[in-house]
Amino acid sequence: MSTPLTPENWFEYHIRVHPNHTDYAGYVWHGSYIVWMEEARVEYLRSLGLDYARLVALGCELPVVELSIRYHRALSMGMSAVVRTRMVQTKGVRLNWDYQIQSPEGDRLYLTAKVTLVAVDRAQGKILRQLPPILQEVLSVVGSVEC
Amino acid sequence: MSTPLTPENWFEYHIRVHPNHTDYAGYVWHGSYIVWMEEARVEYLRSLGLDYARLVALGCELPVVELSIRYHRALSMGMSAVVRTRMVQTKGVRLNWDYQIQSPEGDRLYLTAKVTLVAVDRAQGKILRQLPPILQEVLSVVGSVEC
Amino acid sequence: MSTPLTPENWFEYHIRVHPNHTDYAGYVWHGSYIVWMEEARVEYLRSLGLDYARLVALGCELPVVELSIRYHRALSMGMSAVVRTRMVQTKGVRLNWDYQIQSPEGDRLYLTAKVTLVAVDRAQGKILRQLPPILQEVLSVVGSVEC
Amino acid sequence: MSTPLTPENWFEYHIRVHPNHTDYAGYVWHGSYIVWMEEARVEYLRSLGLDYARLVALGCELPVVELSIRYHRALSMGMSAVVRTRMVQTKGVRLNWDYQIQSPEGDRLYLTAKVTLVAVDRAQGKILRQLPPILQEVLSVVGSVEC
Repeated sequence: MSTPLTPENWFEYHIRVHPNHTDYAGYVWHGSYIVWMEEARVEYLRSLGLDYARLVALGCELPVVELSIRYHRALSMGMSAVVRTRMVQTKGVRLNWDYQIQSPEGDRLYLTAKVTLVAVDRAQGKILRQLPPILQEVLSVVGSVEC
Repeated sequence: MSTPLTPENWFEYHIRVHPNHTDYAGYVWHGSYIVWMEEARVEYLRSLGLDYARLVALGCELPVVELSIRYHRALSMGMSAVVRTRMVQTKGVRLNWDYQIQSPEGDRLYLTAKVTLVAVDRAQGKILRQLPPILQEVLSVVGSVEC
Repeated sequence: MSTPLTPENWFEYHIRVHPNHTDYAGYVWHGSYIVWMEEARVEYLRSLGLDYARLVALGCELPVVELSIRYHRALSMGMSAVVRTRMVQTKGVRLNWDYQIQSPEGDRLYLTAKVTLVAVDRAQGKILRQLPPILQEVLSVVGSVEC
Repeated sequence: MSTPLTPENWFEYHIRVHPNHTDYAGYVWHGSYIVWMEEARVEYLRSLGLDYARLVALGCELPVVELSIRYHRALSMGMSAVVRTRMVQTKGVRLNWDYQIQSPEGDRLYLTAKVTLVAVDRAQGKILRQLPPILQEVLSVVGSVEC
């Protein structure tokens, strides 16, 4: 299985700043980036053969339990950018993701971030003891195995 | 049971424009009003003794099936306003709501709107044949009965 | 200049339902469609050679003054769809747009909508007497001229 | 000047979970908390006599440059909660804020977070050398002075 990753294993998700993403200052409102980061994550999983909606239908969810963002430069309306993400490490049922939002040419860095997800049993609302096989399989493909 | 309604039966929900509601133009983004309209609806039902989350737990949802909005004036950051809503008519399981968004003093009109909800069986995803008793009771209080 | 339009002059904008678009019911929250409709509009103008951010920089904005939506079916998480839009008529500085949101195969209709924009002078906050030349040019391409 | 602060200097902003805040899982979508955190911040400043819109009109903005969140428990539809915030430290033109989101009774903790703002000159898009007097005055009231 092949995935469209860069040499450093970044998955790239292209976005465009539309009016709804901006605030009174003319730049992207700081919460709008969270939307793009989630979309990039879901599309990365899809590129690996895992439909997130299917994972949910199987009873597993991956809520965000930690999030940290540094805003380096502001994106303004009409600009396009690339949300780069990669899974850096899996500890038990915790999945750690890194993010960079860059200009399409790669010469400007807008944002860096880290997100931690945890696998949860949808019915019981409890943290799973281990990742579901369907998710383990995907992680083994990108080499983001337990350390 | 008494509800905090104006003489013309409007329920009033007070809002304030924060940065996240605005767009690049410095005014409220046109989709942000939908958030306030929904919140006013849910709080109106709560004031009548109906917790929407409880209605959902009982298996009934009230999705929006029609929506029309006229934007008269723009609200800008920091302004406060009043979202006024009332149930104008119930036809079977369709609930029609009217909206006005005004200045707190009532001398400026920002928006008028109409929203139609329909009662749906949550499990089957189908339109209900009749409103659940808990909802009928609430509607009889405001005199918005079938015509 | 050629644009990627269907025989009936629809511009097509492809979207995917992500977690942030959904609500507790598992379907797209009714306000999320407004985001996609605006994005489709801006991308249609871009396909015609008009960058909306540039229009704004030139001092003209196109706020929404009327909006009406009918929700036919609900989209759920993970589904993809096509937002189709076309400019149906221009009356002075009022631009009328039609919308359909369909399944990618075109066999299911999720939403139909109408949106009216009006050209506004950004500095004065007043409705323009006539459309800016840059916008007139674009409209003449799609044959959506004054009637 | 008095502000409605708790003994530990927390400002409290009350919120209610409405349908638009939730996602398919039935809980608050992780990005929705950012909205409430910003609103609490703006209302805190207002309680201290500083209207954020006025600060912006004076040429100063306070964009978020760092943000970190830990999600402890999930809020679900219909629940109410208290967003508690305080300014913990000011270093030059950087303002550090702490957050806790709790149940109204204070017995459940949903979220803890830290946010850093920086004072920016709106016209030039550059970081200010020092805080505007209007903002310094407010900070001296809460004792969050430079360390």
